[in-house]
Amino acid sequence: MLQVKYNMEVNVMKKIGILGSTGSIGTQALSIIRNNPEKYKVSALTCGNNIELLIKQIDEFKPCMVCVSSEKNALLLKNKYKNIEVYFGDDGMNEVAKVDNYDIFLTSVVGFAGLKPTYSAIKRGKTIALANKETLVAGGELIMTAAKQYGAKILPVDSEHSAIFQSLLGTEKRFLNKILLTASGGPFRNYTLEQLRNVTLEQTLKHPNWNMGRKITVDSASMMNKGLELIEARWLFDVSPSNIDVLVHPQSVLHSAVEFTDGAVIGQMGIPDMAVPIAFAFSYPDRLENIAKPIDFINKYNNLTFEKLDEDVFVNLKLARQSIEKGGSYPIVLNASNEILVNAFLNKKISFIQIQEGVEKILNNHNPIYQLDNVDSIIEIDCDIRRKTKEYIKEIMEI
Amino acid sequence: MLQVKYNMEVNVMKKIGILGSTGSIGTQALSIIRNNPEKYKVSALTCGNNIELLIKQIDEFKPCMVCVSSEKNALLLKNKYKNIEVYFGDDGMNEVAKVDNYDIFLTSVVGFAGLKPTYSAIKRGKTIALANKETLVAGGELIMTAAKQYGAKILPVDSEHSAIFQSLLGTEKRFLNKILLTASGGPFRNYTLEQLRNVTLEQTLKHPNWNMGRKITVDSASMMNKGLELIEARWLFDVSPSNIDVLVHPQSVLHSAVEFTDGAVIGQMGIPDMAVPIAFAFSYPDRLENIAKPIDFINKYNNLTFEKLDEDVFVNLKLARQSIEKGGSYPIVLNASNEILVNAFLNKKISFIQIQEGVEKILNNHNPIYQLDNVDSIIEIDCDIRRKTKEYIKEIMEI
Repeated sequence: MLQVKYNMEVNVMKKIGILGSTGSIGTQALSIIRNNPEKYKVSALTCGNNIELLIKQIDEFKPCMVCVSSEKNALLLKNKYKNIEVYFGDDGMNEVAKVDNYDIFLTSVVGFAGLKPTYSAIKRGKTIALANKETLVAGGELIMTAAKQYGAKILPVDSEHSAIFQSLLGTEKRFLNKILLTASGGPFRNYTLEQLRNVTLEQTLKHPNWNMGRKITVDSASMMNKGLELIEARWLFDVSPSNIDVLVHPQSVLHSAVEFTDGAVIGQMGIPDMAVPIAFAFSYPDRLENIAKPIDFINKYNNLTFEKLDEDVFVNLKLARQSIEKGGSYPIVLNASNEILVNAFLNKKISFIQIQEGVEKILNNHNPIYQLDNVDSIIEIDCDIRRKTKEYIKEIMEI
Repeated sequence: MLQVKYNMEVNVMKKIGILGSTGSIGTQALSIIRNNPEKYKVSALTCGNNIELLIKQIDEFKPCMVCVSSEKNALLLKNKYKNIEVYFGDDGMNEVAKVDNYDIFLTSVVGFAGLKPTYSAIKRGKTIALANKETLVAGGELIMTAAKQYGAKILPVDSEHSAIFQSLLGTEKRFLNKILLTASGGPFRNYTLEQLRNVTLEQTLKHPNWNMGRKITVDSASMMNKGLELIEARWLFDVSPSNIDVLVHPQSVLHSAVEFTDGAVIGQMGIPDMAVPIAFAFSYPDRLENIAKPIDFINKYNNLTFEKLDEDVFVNLKLARQSIEKGGSYPIVLNASNEILVNAFLNKKISFIQIQEGVEKILNNHNPIYQLDNVDSIIEIDCDIRRKTKEYIKEIMEI
């Protein structure tokens, strides 16, 4: 049998900085580090306001740097830990990213705040374990250009993108024909546009396969999550959006797949569990042991089904595809308007379908900007759209 | 995105020798060569008695060497083609393998006759596109040791083994946990032992997914084919038989998969078509274009199911597993006795279930030989078992 040859590297301890250590991805990442103490060490932890959990994490993992949202909490930590550098706020996160004391930077913070520190880490040529969607959705071109320039690796942590990455291992990208991005279909799978009009917040927050935050749960139900993933995939794998098919697969076992020029399809499968993509971003090209239970194809996952997604019902996917095809500032608009609209839906100010109607409206009214060569110009557009979307919501609430 | 680096090789024309050019695999291979004239050239063709088709192939592909079964046909070809070297018989096939005028040797001949020429090609350090089961089933240890010694690559052409090979690309073998060898289940899927007793030859020869020869069709129905594949997989991928699970998958879309240490499963999928594995053995690590139609997951293959295989009914699989676990001459006995028993079944001398009963009987009566360091000793055991199996069949027919 032909053996693929590898450069043998000395097994060195990898230092990991975690942006968003108290969230779902962050805590799972720490559990992987806990179970592999000979391979990984925590160098930095950042979180928002969950200071109690952060203190436990500091005591266990002994990072040399931490960052929290508020100055008050930062002062508290400074008094408690004399040997740890403590930062706060968005600027603090960016300072953590700029320091040269980590090998892998896990960006598991939610929202737009992830962009700036990720960009800083890329400029240091670090390996990014990317779990922050906004980084590529809003800053795709800037980020990928910088990654190339500074020799930074970007390894996806999303289960879909990790699956695509794993399926491409060992094959040159020029033989890639198509990406098959799978989607669970969410709670409103097969709904008509009429049915979608009447869904409630409670129905929306019931998601069958994954345990996630509320914002992503709404995005999963509205297919915006898949739209954002499509944009990410376009950047990560340098593929035209027209070569990315979304395939509804309710069991979420096939995490995604790729089709090659010869007609062969390679896909990565697993139980619905974020641990494998997180662990693989840490261990690549190696694999760790016993990260997730193996798939029980015979007793549990013995029936895998596939369906079409109706983009005339789940308009968000069409809007995402159009945004990335048009390029420039459109994906920033898609993401920012969606975030504000989802928040309004979570606060019961607008209905579920008004999310996608709103995103479409804001996109249609947008005058695109194509010169996006720094983080600040992206942030400026993002702020502007958030403001406009809030105005829009006020208007439709008055009607 | 991290790009896996490759050694860029100059795109040179590959010369291909085909053992068994008029069979199903051979003709599909020639069709791939026909469609890729800038990449491949035929250097040698061998066949049995289908001289009419061989003449067409010679006229189209202009090999420099051919080999046929009979001296009579060889003389006919010698008169017709003055510039082509013509050989005949098993020794002739071996001569073709020994000549240094090909890069890839496709061993698509059926049966035990494939072993000797394959061994000769390996000793020349050539790339083997292996489609002949008997080579590894009977000569696994000898062949793999020689391949290592002479630097020959063995690329699998079976769709299952090609799928495993493709799924392992880019990952070191030490991270492989398990092979998931899929099986269509054949026409008698879910049958009880009692039901299996009453199946007819006509029922057996109806196979749902693949169009194959009669011997392999019987082996597919009796699960001996899967047993032989399990033995091949053990050698090709250097995996303990206990780490090879057989998974019944009636749609034959997932051609096989591998489970890694972290719990991730990677599998190769495709429509039931031998063209992709043949083409990939030629093009590896590249991929050709438009070899097979892409999978239509939405309209055609939208329901993939998995089941357990009952090894107490399909005893052949258990016998194969035991044979390779015991090692030595046992797999030779398994294969040789099965071939004779299948032939008796095809000639309506014995019943379907008497195939597996016979294989078990012959295996139980065998005194194993563990010193198998040359092809001739393997051939000797094979001949001996064929003779003993014929005697056994005579005995049970007299009862």
